[in-house]
Amino acid sequence: MKIAILPGDGIGPEIIAQARRVLDVLAADGLAFETEEAPLGGAGYDAYGHPYPEFTQKLAREADAILLGAVGGPAYDTLDRPLRPERGLLAIRKDLNLFANLRPAILYPELANASTLKPEVVSGLDIMIVRELTGDIYFGQPRGIRVNEAGEREGFNTMLYSESEIRRIAHVAFGIAQKRNKKLCSVDKANVLECTEFWKEIFIDVAREYPDVELSHMYVDNAAMQLVRNPKQFDVMVTGNIFGDILSDEASMLTGSIGMLPSASLDANNKGLYEPSHGSAPDIAGKDIANPLATILSAAMMLRYTFNLEAEAQRIENAVKTVLKQGFRTADIFEEGCQKVSCSGMGDAVVAAL
Amino acid sequence: MKIAILPGDGIGPEIIAQARRVLDVLAADGLAFETEEAPLGGAGYDAYGHPYPEFTQKLAREADAILLGAVGGPAYDTLDRPLRPERGLLAIRKDLNLFANLRPAILYPELANASTLKPEVVSGLDIMIVRELTGDIYFGQPRGIRVNEAGEREGFNTMLYSESEIRRIAHVAFGIAQKRNKKLCSVDKANVLECTEFWKEIFIDVAREYPDVELSHMYVDNAAMQLVRNPKQFDVMVTGNIFGDILSDEASMLTGSIGMLPSASLDANNKGLYEPSHGSAPDIAGKDIANPLATILSAAMMLRYTFNLEAEAQRIENAVKTVLKQGFRTADIFEEGCQKVSCSGMGDAVVAAL
Ligand SMILES: CC(C)[C@H](C(=O)O)[C@@H](O)C(=O)O
Ligand SMILES: CC(C)[C@H](C(=O)O)[C@@H](O)C(=O)O
Repeated sequence: MKIAILPGDGIGPEIIAQARRVLDVLAADGLAFETEEAPLGGAGYDAYGHPYPEFTQKLAREADAILLGAVGGPAYDTLDRPLRPERGLLAIRKDLNLFANLRPAILYPELANASTLKPEVVSGLDIMIVRELTGDIYFGQPRGIRVNEAGEREGFNTMLYSESEIRRIAHVAFGIAQKRNKKLCSVDKANVLECTEFWKEIFIDVAREYPDVELSHMYVDNAAMQLVRNPKQFDVMVTGNIFGDILSDEASMLTGSIGMLPSASLDANNKGLYEPSHGSAPDIAGKDIANPLATILSAAMMLRYTFNLEAEAQRIENAVKTVLKQGFRTADIFEEGCQKVSCSGMGDAVVAAL
Repeated sequence: MKIAILPGDGIGPEIIAQARRVLDVLAADGLAFETEEAPLGGAGYDAYGHPYPEFTQKLAREADAILLGAVGGPAYDTLDRPLRPERGLLAIRKDLNLFANLRPAILYPELANASTLKPEVVSGLDIMIVRELTGDIYFGQPRGIRVNEAGEREGFNTMLYSESEIRRIAHVAFGIAQKRNKKLCSVDKANVLECTEFWKEIFIDVAREYPDVELSHMYVDNAAMQLVRNPKQFDVMVTGNIFGDILSDEASMLTGSIGMLPSASLDANNKGLYEPSHGSAPDIAGKDIANPLATILSAAMMLRYTFNLEAEAQRIENAVKTVLKQGFRTADIFEEGCQKVSCSGMGDAVVAAL
């Protein structure tokens, strides 16, 4: 079991350090991990002059799984060190063919107050969003800024999905729905966009192989509304790259604690990149106050999806639930009556609870 | 002042009837309207075999403003009577060049409980979303489903904005921000999509003509989150057609009372189409229980934006506020302690309050 560890920028190294401690406990109990670190994003610039350096690429390609902190920060994305996503985050996703992005939106009962939504609307919320991650308008050609026939400048991009791209994400989504409550909602804009009309057609076809899963379809504008109106109606949602970008962020914010939410990006063989749903938070970097739980939960997802170690994944998830019950809170989720802990203090608590 | 009235389908005719009563009161007080009715959507099929019949097109083109109910219903969108938006709603928008869609998301204090968000998060909410309505991936060419070079089928669409399309919507958005709190947030995905990178560039350029307006930029995924996290940070938001479709629906649902929200779609000379933000609700059509207030408020927007009759617009809006204060509620916004009224009963109340 080879794990590439990419701490990245900002709070990345701090939160990764705590996730490593958790993995170390499991290793001491017999799991045979091999880990190696490499830089990504701004850290890639610092070390090798590129956000996705060859060194990192080699390691990431050889690894079975990748654990990532976060990328980006004010020192980068300057003219001489552009942190364009297509050179960092999008490059690694595409390079490793990580087409299936899984983003849970779970509300922990202990953190119910953190949501901006009324408790009765979100209590017990547990949605899994499956976002296609290597196609769509993110990568479609042609694209750019050009002068048109009328002599005017115009910006343009291409939304594009091939049948095989849709089929493989459909199988992932149906497979996940099968293991949950067997309800899959495919989100499209089939009333306007042929690309998503085609998406819908293929999903209906794939559905015949999963008669136990109830497939429904929803327009993306309605989905954005329904997530606010009654998010608990959803079990698994699946959609393309750009709609998934928007809806998964909206859904994660419903919980009010984006510092708690992990994510996985998988290829066809369950090789995966695991990272927190939140960003690199440069403003609090180095202060040991970030919330490491999303990264720790990302490690749990890694054990589940790449290494098929369900019991070990649950061991970590249960430890996280325990520390929440014990009242430990980092600053981002702190409430009166709880015990405020640092990033490493939260790591201590999780290690103790394991 | 020529007004084309398109009742449309479902609850359309009922809610339009109440808006007409309101306009009749203003006419009796001296406003010289000329009104004529024509069918759109399913009603267009019934009358002329087309969702946007020539008769309607002619009337709509000649009118200064159009008041629309809603379109669609289960009797249509069948194989022989397809209600594809490009033949109805999208056709009339494009035909009349209605490129500026204004969608307020306002929370009335009397209806604060209807929101799924906590009162402190949404009380006093008053956002104006400006959505570009005749460009973007809705209309971009090429588009379709084709067989690619590898012999595989693929669906594709083109996101496209020319400089002049962006400039004209920017001027509308800055102009509206100038009349409000002078804060304009332009929403894009400039970190990934060249089309929206171009959008951002043009907005920055146009901003120099509006030094009194504070322009900010936000990625669409973040905007979808911020609308849930802290919607009151926004004054005016402006974005392209597809992002605007998603975000304006999300924003309107924050209020919990989409039956209250009007919309305007304007051309370069303030000719406009006015309609409620909600749909045709075929399940309650003909029962006289729909909420006519969004349509009545759409008529107010028409007086403001097309006819420049600010005082008259406010007269209608104040009447709506009055009936809410008086406790009149249609079923969709009913609460214990209020007085439930029918669609026409609500019309009575507004007419009395004028
Ligand atoms: C940084 C950006 C390119 C990226 C995306 O749009 O995919 C981010 O928003 C995400 O969701 O991981
Ligand atoms: C019906 C559909 C084509 C339309 C759109 O996407 O523009 C609707 O969602 C709207 O917002 O008016």
